[in-house]
Amino acid sequence: MANLDRLFNALSDPTRRAILQDLRRGPATAGALGAAHPMALPSFMKHLGVLERAGLIETEKQGRTRSCRLAPGALVPVSAWLADQRLLWEERTERLAAFVENHEERR
Amino acid sequence: MANLDRLFNALSDPTRRAILQDLRRGPATAGALGAAHPMALPSFMKHLGVLERAGLIETEKQGRTRSCRLAPGALVPVSAWLADQRLLWEERTERLAAFVENHEERR
Repeated sequence: MANLDRLFNALSDPTRRAILQDLRRGPATAGALGAAHPMALPSFMKHLGVLERAGLIETEKQGRTRSCRLAPGALVPVSAWLADQRLLWEERTERLAAFVENHEERR
Repeated sequence: MANLDRLFNALSDPTRRAILQDLRRGPATAGALGAAHPMALPSFMKHLGVLERAGLIETEKQGRTRSCRLAPGALVPVSAWLADQRLLWEERTERLAAFVENHEERR
């Protein structure tokens, strides 16, 4: 539960979603990633921290730079939650459709 | 973009996810929904407001009660974003696998 909180919260910011998109091209240093975003480095590092604590990225200090990469499988809990929701919402829609059909037949 | 922000933010709270789960059973009044959650009514109404502004639920005032129901299709943008991410992360994994295979062959 707490992990879903952190994941959804991490994904609720456009800068953080853009960082994930940037990292699709491969690992990058925090500096290189930050250059693409018009904000102060401390603010940018906070976004990286939120992504890392949510388990969406992995970072590694290499000398004076910090290398970042996507964490494989990190979106699985989000995907599972969503699949569960969709399944059950569809079930409800189907039940509603069946009810309407029955009702129409009876008229 | 702004809509994804609101959707992910709305989903980042366990009470709000529980409300969506409760509403799978069908429409319910705010009072009936709130009875299941140990918090003051104003706090609970704020959660309903966040869900409604994100487009996840629809509410309707009926006399002195407010009826709530799931908004059909509300999770489509989240689902689309996630599908896009998974596709591209899988592509990267495949490219990495191909690279490793090539590298192994050359050794």
